[in-house]
Amino acid sequence: MIVEGINVVNELLNSNSKIEKILVENSNNLNLQKIVERAKNLGVKLEILAKTDLDKIRANTQSVLAFVPNYKYVEVEDMLALAEKKGQKPFVVILDGIMDPHNLGAIIRTCECAGVHGVIIPENRACDITDTVYKTSAGAVCHVKIAKVVNLTRTIEKLKQAGIWVYALEAGNKRIYKADFTYPTALVIGGEGKGVSRLVKESVDEVLSLDMFGKVNSLNASNAAAIGIYEVLRQRVK
Amino acid sequence: MIVEGINVVNELLNSNSKIEKILVENSNNLNLQKIVERAKNLGVKLEILAKTDLDKIRANTQSVLAFVPNYKYVEVEDMLALAEKKGQKPFVVILDGIMDPHNLGAIIRTCECAGVHGVIIPENRACDITDTVYKTSAGAVCHVKIAKVVNLTRTIEKLKQAGIWVYALEAGNKRIYKADFTYPTALVIGGEGKGVSRLVKESVDEVLSLDMFGKVNSLNASNAAAIGIYEVLRQRVK
Repeated sequence: MIVEGINVVNELLNSNSKIEKILVENSNNLNLQKIVERAKNLGVKLEILAKTDLDKIRANTQSVLAFVPNYKYVEVEDMLALAEKKGQKPFVVILDGIMDPHNLGAIIRTCECAGVHGVIIPENRACDITDTVYKTSAGAVCHVKIAKVVNLTRTIEKLKQAGIWVYALEAGNKRIYKADFTYPTALVIGGEGKGVSRLVKESVDEVLSLDMFGKVNSLNASNAAAIGIYEVLRQRVK
Repeated sequence: MIVEGINVVNELLNSNSKIEKILVENSNNLNLQKIVERAKNLGVKLEILAKTDLDKIRANTQSVLAFVPNYKYVEVEDMLALAEKKGQKPFVVILDGIMDPHNLGAIIRTCECAGVHGVIIPENRACDITDTVYKTSAGAVCHVKIAKVVNLTRTIEKLKQAGIWVYALEAGNKRIYKADFTYPTALVIGGEGKGVSRLVKESVDEVLSLDMFGKVNSLNASNAAAIGIYEVLRQRVK
């Protein structure tokens, strides 16, 4: 996979992600020169090219490209282990069918900023971790644990058995502020258009809702996710 | 301006927005047939076309287009009047240089859902209310008051003189939860990349921040806006 952009490549270099090769435009741009220096220090394979040659590999790039292996998913257990290692109550985000890479990237970015222990996505009918998601997440995919599972409801059952409260964020009777997120928490966010699917809604502990006072009665999926994620933080961080 | 999509055209029909003409694909799709019926009932000029003819006007449409006048901005005073009419403390959102129409649309959608009294954008170096914003807001632009001002800092001064507390959401010392949003409130959201500009930051009453625990230390602009807007709601709605 080829990912691009100064932010993304910097986050790759900040993480332990494997980088096969970095291609940088021959330029005086300070941010690009910093990337060159960092790549050299880390022993990453590097090529410095004229803009015209870079454009042959990918048109309209942001002057730096990285060749990376396809995204390496983790297991849900790895997320719970991370929470334990940090001495925190688990907090995972489950995405039930996010299709738009811009939304997926924004959600992963918010999860990373919020210190979420992991993001779970389904194998089918959902956006994968593509090069676009690297970019729209501002490189946050390099730092967040992401698991891809075959069956979301089965995963939810396993989480519940592990003592985690699983909530879906959807139109419902109970305001999100009534939930106690100081307990181990999983938050399910529905996809664009369809929201949380029926089977998933039936499998969660509770459906929580955000106040809606307008005529358009649903939020952009990444915005809804952000509000939910930060409500968990608000309750947890003193 | 030509706007497109079932959601957008439905919201146009739900609002008092002027519609010059609606073009619909000749189809059995129930959502399209509902639009035809509603347009007829409201006396809106309507043409039903074959898909091939519709595609000549705009390629890859969602099967329905509406011709509308350019977006009609309001004055900041209109927002304060709306708050007064509703018997609510004013709550306006100020966008300091949002450039991406997806972010702008998502923010306007969240503002509409949250019952924000108005959104203020600057005349320069910011995304305008374009056809893309109609779409990315899911039609919410039809229901939200939006003002475009020449000088944001002057507008902020006027808001402060009107008894409104103006906060910028940016990296700062004070957590957002410490602010009391039950008072008249304006919330400034910074643009992608640059954040809140220096002059604006100097003109607000206080800078408020969101908790950040990751390596990527900034959120997508629309996600940050959503968290801030819903924190105001959390404090206000009992």
